[in-house]
Amino acid sequence: MNNHTGSVEVFDTTLRDGLQVEGVSASVEDKLRIAEQLDLLGVDFIEGGWPGANPKDIEFFARAASELDLTASTLVAFGSTRRPKGKVDDDATLRNLLDARTAVVCIVAKSWDYHVLEALKTTLDEGEAMIADSVEFLAGQGRRVLVDMEHFFDGYKRNPEFALRALEAAVVKGASHVVLCDTNGGSLPDEVAAIVGDVHRHVGGDVTIGIHCHDDTGCAVANSMAAVGAGARHVQGTLNGLGERTGNANLTTIIPNLQLKLGYTCLPDGRLERLTAVSHHVAELLNRAVNPQAPYVGSSAFAHKAGLHVSAIARAKDAYEHVDPEAVGNGTRFVVSEMAGRATIQMKADELGLEMDGPAVNQVIDDLKRLEHEGYHFEAADGSLELLMRRAAGFEQEFFRVESMRVITDELPGGEFVTEATVKVWVGEDRHVFVAEGNGPVNAIDIALRKALLKYYPQLDRVHLVDFTVRILDGGAATGAVTRVLLSATDGERDWTTIGVSGNVIEASWRALEESYVYGLLHARHD
Amino acid sequence: MNNHTGSVEVFDTTLRDGLQVEGVSASVEDKLRIAEQLDLLGVDFIEGGWPGANPKDIEFFARAASELDLTASTLVAFGSTRRPKGKVDDDATLRNLLDARTAVVCIVAKSWDYHVLEALKTTLDEGEAMIADSVEFLAGQGRRVLVDMEHFFDGYKRNPEFALRALEAAVVKGASHVVLCDTNGGSLPDEVAAIVGDVHRHVGGDVTIGIHCHDDTGCAVANSMAAVGAGARHVQGTLNGLGERTGNANLTTIIPNLQLKLGYTCLPDGRLERLTAVSHHVAELLNRAVNPQAPYVGSSAFAHKAGLHVSAIARAKDAYEHVDPEAVGNGTRFVVSEMAGRATIQMKADELGLEMDGPAVNQVIDDLKRLEHEGYHFEAADGSLELLMRRAAGFEQEFFRVESMRVITDELPGGEFVTEATVKVWVGEDRHVFVAEGNGPVNAIDIALRKALLKYYPQLDRVHLVDFTVRILDGGAATGAVTRVLLSATDGERDWTTIGVSGNVIEASWRALEESYVYGLLHARHD
Repeated sequence: MNNHTGSVEVFDTTLRDGLQVEGVSASVEDKLRIAEQLDLLGVDFIEGGWPGANPKDIEFFARAASELDLTASTLVAFGSTRRPKGKVDDDATLRNLLDARTAVVCIVAKSWDYHVLEALKTTLDEGEAMIADSVEFLAGQGRRVLVDMEHFFDGYKRNPEFALRALEAAVVKGASHVVLCDTNGGSLPDEVAAIVGDVHRHVGGDVTIGIHCHDDTGCAVANSMAAVGAGARHVQGTLNGLGERTGNANLTTIIPNLQLKLGYTCLPDGRLERLTAVSHHVAELLNRAVNPQAPYVGSSAFAHKAGLHVSAIARAKDAYEHVDPEAVGNGTRFVVSEMAGRATIQMKADELGLEMDGPAVNQVIDDLKRLEHEGYHFEAADGSLELLMRRAAGFEQEFFRVESMRVITDELPGGEFVTEATVKVWVGEDRHVFVAEGNGPVNAIDIALRKALLKYYPQLDRVHLVDFTVRILDGGAATGAVTRVLLSATDGERDWTTIGVSGNVIEASWRALEESYVYGLLHARHD
Repeated sequence: MNNHTGSVEVFDTTLRDGLQVEGVSASVEDKLRIAEQLDLLGVDFIEGGWPGANPKDIEFFARAASELDLTASTLVAFGSTRRPKGKVDDDATLRNLLDARTAVVCIVAKSWDYHVLEALKTTLDEGEAMIADSVEFLAGQGRRVLVDMEHFFDGYKRNPEFALRALEAAVVKGASHVVLCDTNGGSLPDEVAAIVGDVHRHVGGDVTIGIHCHDDTGCAVANSMAAVGAGARHVQGTLNGLGERTGNANLTTIIPNLQLKLGYTCLPDGRLERLTAVSHHVAELLNRAVNPQAPYVGSSAFAHKAGLHVSAIARAKDAYEHVDPEAVGNGTRFVVSEMAGRATIQMKADELGLEMDGPAVNQVIDDLKRLEHEGYHFEAADGSLELLMRRAAGFEQEFFRVESMRVITDELPGGEFVTEATVKVWVGEDRHVFVAEGNGPVNAIDIALRKALLKYYPQLDRVHLVDFTVRILDGGAATGAVTRVLLSATDGERDWTTIGVSGNVIEASWRALEESYVYGLLHARHD
């Protein structure tokens, strides 16, 4: 609606606040790879960690200095103000911060009187002095100093006079930024706009105002944008909304909102197109899938299912999509399910370059209905969907045929587990029996089958499996229920997912594996 | 901040728009169970489906009429306006809608001129007449009529005159509600507030204004609240934000925001406390876990990890939590991980009623560091964490000891898969060898072991497994990688999750299974 010409700085704290998310831990190596991705995206600041609070973070900054070659982003070390009644020049936290040798540092300061009095157990005057002394000391050491005003909104609502005193202490001593933090995440957009507006009027142009939100009311994105609307020009958040509790403000959503919808500049030219790839790559490094429903970057963000719409979307995408998915490196996707009508199947066939007549389309619709009733879910398995459609159009795989197989897992007397598979397979007129050990039944089958096939299909060497998930379809029966296995594979250029469903988990895995090979061999032949 | 005294109606469309989410399908039985949950929560309206567009939904309304006994909620059937150039009294869609026999109906109407001209291929006058005729007809049949104004915000921005004409057509003919839909989900809170304000001034008090948002900008919650701030008194959304693409507005977040933070009444007295339970129950019915990061109802929403805070939170919860988690039926949780300090471990021990001295606490910290380095993740496995802590405090399980085991899976000549496990187990001085068939290796081991143990521990009969997930820890190696198995079990009163990690997936499964039995037996003895 508006078209702003200004810039908003992006400050990423995935590597510090983001890693507080439950269920994730990252090695120093992971953190270095993530920093490279953030630089590729082109954020202004990468907060790398809290040296001193976490020994891994000391190593991170040491290795970052020698190994990373950042071109767009500036690395930031995080710390806190000096301890109460202490001195800046013998404060361990400040010393560790300087030892990280970053040009920019960010320190957290208490701006809610309650926390000064009750958590720090000190006076408000000392609380203010802790900020003033620490900023002065760090600035005196040649650092650019950002100050995260912890609990600013809660503090301002209860004691605005102290919250502003704390903030002024940082400004007067030379902080380049004061970042207003909604630490408990309980604020709503209207109050964020009002309070940021007050602060903006109060400090004028002396300092850059930043915003740092958490998503406890589901409004972290809206709160961050409300702050920008009220004068903030620096937004802190994380990729994919990683972070403690409900997560930090999701930069993956905020950046395109600000840039595509309001006309602010957040990233260097040409970088927004990398958003989806960077989001997924970082998620993979942390072994934590991107939420399919995530705005802009999720796999479902531009996926259309309702039969009602599919034909219309084809005619006029901008009447059905709020932005061009290509602008963020994502794409429109048509989802095929048992609810799919003829038009959807036909469109999917066109997408695959398959010629399908009426009876073939009907066959696909029938197969989908029957198989999805059994527990298959083709929305999640593009590879198997393609094979199902090709089969309806006449395709029969002649690459190999498995006669039978057997898998044995033994616990040895020492407690070690070993798994061995025997696979009897035909390729054309040749019959082979291969045995292989593996670290589980599927792995052993995979290795045995490859031994048999590689002689005939050397191109299989490029195909490897990248993910394997098992889902229990009837939660009530747990280990005794029908299982659905999804298997993702790649040949380095193309990625595909196949599916298997069975009452026996080994059979389900085998079906998915067989389809994965067939898909890989088919495209190796075609390409 | 504000304290409103008014009410805001809650209209749940989980069963209609929500089921457009990718990867979910629900049976009629599932839908009936979900409707019961929604009634238990106390939403005003439950949109049950689109009879006619989906045959399952005709069955749903028939069975709902005879089987459901709703006490708080009103069931709504969804449909659309009559077809272009058609007549209301021979329109199949309207006929199906009436056949659903609900007192309230909701129809979708086109309010963006582009969609009238290009999707319907008719004139704006006919577009307006389709709305007027349909509302008049349905109201004449004694129905209360809500009208979903599709693409209202996009339409209003481009042609406000037609958008308002469409809206007035519904109002004049007796619609009780006009619901402004952000169908493509691209709007931001400021523009939603401005447009809803315009509409509110335009139609005054003649009709209730509703809002229906999608989360494509990550602002569906904030947009819904902005609409309420500008005069809307009816909010449409879904539980857990289910819905096509990025999902519908999440009622699980909006309801507590409106009720706890702004003082509106959304649910009958005493119902908000059921929010977390209903959210999780519905997720389970749809076999789709609640996002742990979900505001208010997620398992991480009130989980605290940072060592920095844990001791402070214990002293003053309201300084660290934006609302009382009990208000929505959730609770504060302290998360234990390799980063946990002594205070966290001590607090967890108190929570479990375990006496732990200094060396025992140190032992726990060492064990956590070592095991999490190997791939364990105790945040997700409360049962295994408790056992680890008990072991550090001196506990040794004497319930049973497995000497060895073997699992064989065969593909029979007919293509059928059979799995058989042999388990050799000691209970006290007795040695047993049991064999069992199962639908996969873990199931077969489970059955064989139960046969051996039930004689000694009949209480095991109450323990059953409810979920089983397998995670590959090193994505690069796929079927050849280290796997982490999480196993959830229940004895009907207590739920617990245990974990196993190994290079062999059968071993990882077995470790989790063994821990699950030990936990179950331990608490059966204690309780």
